[in-house]
Amino acid sequence: MRATLMYAAGDVRVETLPDPTIQKPTDAIVRVVRACVCGSDLHPFHDLPAQEQGMQMGHEFLGIVEGAGSDVAGVKVGDLVVASFSYQDNTCEFCRAGVQTACVHVGFFSAAQAELIRVPLADGTLVKLPVGTDSELLPSLLTLADVYGTGYHAAKRANVTAGDTVAVIGDGAVGLLAVLSAKQLGAERIILMGRHKARTDLGLEFGATDVVAERGEEGITTVRDLTDGGALKVLEAVGHRPAYDQAVGIVRAGGVISRVGVPQYDEAPVGFASLFGRNITLNGGPAPVRAYIDELMPGILNGTVNPGKVFDRSVSLDEVPAAYQAMDDREALKVLIAL
Amino acid sequence: MRATLMYAAGDVRVETLPDPTIQKPTDAIVRVVRACVCGSDLHPFHDLPAQEQGMQMGHEFLGIVEGAGSDVAGVKVGDLVVASFSYQDNTCEFCRAGVQTACVHVGFFSAAQAELIRVPLADGTLVKLPVGTDSELLPSLLTLADVYGTGYHAAKRANVTAGDTVAVIGDGAVGLLAVLSAKQLGAERIILMGRHKARTDLGLEFGATDVVAERGEEGITTVRDLTDGGALKVLEAVGHRPAYDQAVGIVRAGGVISRVGVPQYDEAPVGFASLFGRNITLNGGPAPVRAYIDELMPGILNGTVNPGKVFDRSVSLDEVPAAYQAMDDREALKVLIAL
Repeated sequence: MRATLMYAAGDVRVETLPDPTIQKPTDAIVRVVRACVCGSDLHPFHDLPAQEQGMQMGHEFLGIVEGAGSDVAGVKVGDLVVASFSYQDNTCEFCRAGVQTACVHVGFFSAAQAELIRVPLADGTLVKLPVGTDSELLPSLLTLADVYGTGYHAAKRANVTAGDTVAVIGDGAVGLLAVLSAKQLGAERIILMGRHKARTDLGLEFGATDVVAERGEEGITTVRDLTDGGALKVLEAVGHRPAYDQAVGIVRAGGVISRVGVPQYDEAPVGFASLFGRNITLNGGPAPVRAYIDELMPGILNGTVNPGKVFDRSVSLDEVPAAYQAMDDREALKVLIAL
Repeated sequence: MRATLMYAAGDVRVETLPDPTIQKPTDAIVRVVRACVCGSDLHPFHDLPAQEQGMQMGHEFLGIVEGAGSDVAGVKVGDLVVASFSYQDNTCEFCRAGVQTACVHVGFFSAAQAELIRVPLADGTLVKLPVGTDSELLPSLLTLADVYGTGYHAAKRANVTAGDTVAVIGDGAVGLLAVLSAKQLGAERIILMGRHKARTDLGLEFGATDVVAERGEEGITTVRDLTDGGALKVLEAVGHRPAYDQAVGIVRAGGVISRVGVPQYDEAPVGFASLFGRNITLNGGPAPVRAYIDELMPGILNGTVNPGKVFDRSVSLDEVPAAYQAMDDREALKVLIAL
């Protein structure tokens, strides 16, 4: 099969690898129909040390089940399915509590930008899609694999409810889908902090009521002025330390900072002046998107939401290296791979 | 009036000061009947730089209303009342949301170890006690001013509910009352981390099911073994950085660290390895004890709970300097002042 490999920062190649095979009775093999490049794929694109054996890439995909182990009962050969970016048994204590990314058997996909992929724990991971491979809904359904569920996780962990004032930090695909999710959960006012107009325009379309382009102290002051002292729910969808500091600066006393941007820092202020003194809650983490697929799919199928709008470019598998470059240059927000 | 003043670390004196007077129509003057020394009073007792004018001390008291401004409607002269350690209007947005320590008019008492005290915002701060000054319940009712409500806040913010496994870090008065609170909220298993036997014995009486005396990595291993991987709800009642690290070490994936020990640190780990990767929630803060007084008082009045057991010594006002020393030497857990 053809597959995407990264050999070093900036060095992405599409090469031929042996087809994956079923290794355990709970495995399935899926022929990928749609995959995509994630913002987090850009981290190794920036700093991966050179390596002789390339590293397979990609964790978001939907496709056709091509083979299934003897223990797989939930899906069958020929089904069109979407996978969560993590695989899990979906039956353990942590899965039942809705923290699938802490499943006792959890793993994370890293080979989805390819023609075929092996799916461990297929019954806990794959969800059948009630459409065909010619459906116009495929881009939106693909967002269930990660970015939509991740934006939704931010809003859920912040307990966004009807009438809320919410601030979203970051205008990447996750931030924009956090806006969409907050809107779905009834937020009345949604302030989007971002400064790429094409992206914040999509944020407005998704339900943002205000856009704040300023950063740092200036951005904090603007949001505090807009909200008369801060937003009760802050969704942080960036992961860099300045975004954390921004969240602390704009959150209202008694409020929540819900993080889904993977922290690129270890320590940060949590003392009296930042969190403790105002009874701020800090939560979030890797989204248990498997928990949300059933909940979010109906809105896509009935046309209520169109999260697939985050894809502003589509490429073939052979064009994936250029897709990385386009996202890194911020020419593209998120690139779909159609196989 | 006689009042307690601190002049420097280790230098506590009882001296005569002018009586406080009503300064605003919302003020009341209370003649203190019971006060006490708080663990947090030991911070300046350790490190207060010498100063010419002594600093008045104390934030926990109950007493008789001796004077009331013209706008005070909720209590009247002669009432026996308890105050929360913060004063607040109890009507603003933050008070209504149960975060009274973030009230737009909030302030904190610091002159309660004295014969008289001025109470700003009396209607939002004082609660009438339905007992006389000869009641045996006064020690327990005094804990409503701070330590009981603070322990309860830890348990409430951790959302402790029936059947939970809870770990409490710290065997000071707040930690022990966090144990009592967790028990009241239905926790099935309560692991108390502390190593002063007299204190942990009281913790067992309050409802702890296990005591872990080990600290650091050893303590973490013990709690993780006891709980098969960690406690879902961790109540941190110390405030020093090692207690934070201990909390991170013993919390279960998807769980909560609820802090009520005032952080003596600014930065701490919040990245992937500590909080984010396992979807840990960090919350807590200065307890809005005013919000809990009405809820907690009935259990004291009907004898269900006896939080006043945290007082293991009683002194007169003139003996307060020795009370500080006894608490600092850990000869006393918490000292009551009977006026």
